[in-house]
Amino acid sequence: MTPLRWRGDRLEVLDQALLPHEERWRDCRSSADVVAAITEMAVRGAPAIGITAAFGIVLAARGGEDLAAAARLLKAARPTAVNLAGAVDRMLAVGTEVGRLEREARALWEEDRASCDAIGRAGLPWVPEGARILTHCNTGALATGGDGTALAVIRAAHRAGTVSRVYCTETRPWLQGARLTAWELASEGIEYRLLVDSAAAGLLRSGGVDLVIVGADRVALNGDVANKVGTLSLAFAARACGVPFHVAIPLSTLDRHTTTGADIPVEERGADEVRVVRGRPVAAPGTPVWNPAFDVTPAELVSGFVTDAGAIEPPYGVWPAG
Amino acid sequence: MTPLRWRGDRLEVLDQALLPHEERWRDCRSSADVVAAITEMAVRGAPAIGITAAFGIVLAARGGEDLAAAARLLKAARPTAVNLAGAVDRMLAVGTEVGRLEREARALWEEDRASCDAIGRAGLPWVPEGARILTHCNTGALATGGDGTALAVIRAAHRAGTVSRVYCTETRPWLQGARLTAWELASEGIEYRLLVDSAAAGLLRSGGVDLVIVGADRVALNGDVANKVGTLSLAFAARACGVPFHVAIPLSTLDRHTTTGADIPVEERGADEVRVVRGRPVAAPGTPVWNPAFDVTPAELVSGFVTDAGAIEPPYGVWPAG
Repeated sequence: MTPLRWRGDRLEVLDQALLPHEERWRDCRSSADVVAAITEMAVRGAPAIGITAAFGIVLAARGGEDLAAAARLLKAARPTAVNLAGAVDRMLAVGTEVGRLEREARALWEEDRASCDAIGRAGLPWVPEGARILTHCNTGALATGGDGTALAVIRAAHRAGTVSRVYCTETRPWLQGARLTAWELASEGIEYRLLVDSAAAGLLRSGGVDLVIVGADRVALNGDVANKVGTLSLAFAARACGVPFHVAIPLSTLDRHTTTGADIPVEERGADEVRVVRGRPVAAPGTPVWNPAFDVTPAELVSGFVTDAGAIEPPYGVWPAG
Repeated sequence: MTPLRWRGDRLEVLDQALLPHEERWRDCRSSADVVAAITEMAVRGAPAIGITAAFGIVLAARGGEDLAAAARLLKAARPTAVNLAGAVDRMLAVGTEVGRLEREARALWEEDRASCDAIGRAGLPWVPEGARILTHCNTGALATGGDGTALAVIRAAHRAGTVSRVYCTETRPWLQGARLTAWELASEGIEYRLLVDSAAAGLLRSGGVDLVIVGADRVALNGDVANKVGTLSLAFAARACGVPFHVAIPLSTLDRHTTTGADIPVEERGADEVRVVRGRPVAAPGTPVWNPAFDVTPAELVSGFVTDAGAIEPPYGVWPAG
């Protein structure tokens, strides 16, 4: 299962807006095609959009585009995940030669795959025997270049036999949990239940969860976490119920230039993501909507980070070299 | 705006499953029709299903049904809201004569209408000037025999000029907020925004809300509150952010036979409510689902109750006579 296929002259992107109902690949032959795929969320997940943007630079170089302009548009495609800007900057540092750029993009992808494996291994000690794990959004193969971040931990723990059940929130408005995570869990044969986002608090209070683990789109130096909208709600509930709350990230998701979460831009998306579900209106036309794609969870609610450089416990502030 | 019309020989129920997309009235001519309307949520909201069930008893008496059997089925239609069983028991106490039963059902409806007005008045002192209010689910005219419970407070405060904006959660899985509350707020000309349930925590943390006010389906003697799934999540977030969290109820929602929330049965509903939205699948067929309709918020998270007998502040335990 991979969300991307590099074909030498084009990047094929599995259109995640259509999964699991339809499996359609979308051709990207220019950086503009890549920008559109990212903006429209055909590809999403912080590590996956970083890899996608790297190939966007390759395509820009192949097509003789102005690399600086392409880079600017790619970085602006989505503002919150830091991997996107990080990957683009890394590509620009390589120069303009197509072959070297292509090797760099492939290297970035391979490193992310290895990061996912390392995150999986690093998370194992945090998963108790018979664990019931709650996760949010999609942090799996579809969101990364490998096994995932939070879902890599779940996959590794499942292989180690320590997972008894995964609870997967549907993740409104875009339904990444219902459409993508449920699909990944089912294909791995992991026992799971889907629930609406707002049901998680009752589940946590009932003692039904041993561990919450989520991914992140950007982590500030102080440990504040920007992640899919709804993460903060789970963090508040987990803390109130005494359930550990872990965040799984590659270190490429740490933004060494951002001091606290207050400095992280939170993308607001269009009203129709909330008003319309799979082409069917669920609210009256014209209903005014507030639709932030992310929220920021303060570091004090994070029990620990699980990274490709091992586990990191509070207090946060000193991070391994990336 | 009323969800019910009594026609002497039948009860017409506005099918809330179809709102706001379609306005269709459903005829109930027997207690079995009423049970179906309640079970399928054509009518919902604790006070409204109490009134509906009362007319179910009238229809049973008119049709020569076994009243005890009809009462049993009506009470079992939905287990969590206490108003349902309360209304049925009150009707049984009147006897079996159709005229008297009909007058009792009408009286119960009128009392609920008056309760809504009293709740609205009692809530006014809790709403600060320029208030930004967050509410959940639908607690308005569609859920009651009058102006609503939490929404009656919002309506009264709007008339008094103290509301600057209402935030209305969509309320998955049944979308009562997106479909019903948004519709009621728009028709009142109240400034509002719709948001996904899980976005509320970020809004609360940003300081964007002055007051959370919700309704309830059953309140235990110790003040624990069973209400629409997602209420607990808002209560945890409100407490963590220092925002007052109020619960608006008629005293008919207080269950004087239930000591704590642990004794309140929480209805679990079918998987397709989560898997399918307006006829369109949002998860793969067969996806296993956990779908509780309610959750229980512990009394210590409730800043105060707004009732038809006035405001009630902690500690809870001594309640006005109902």
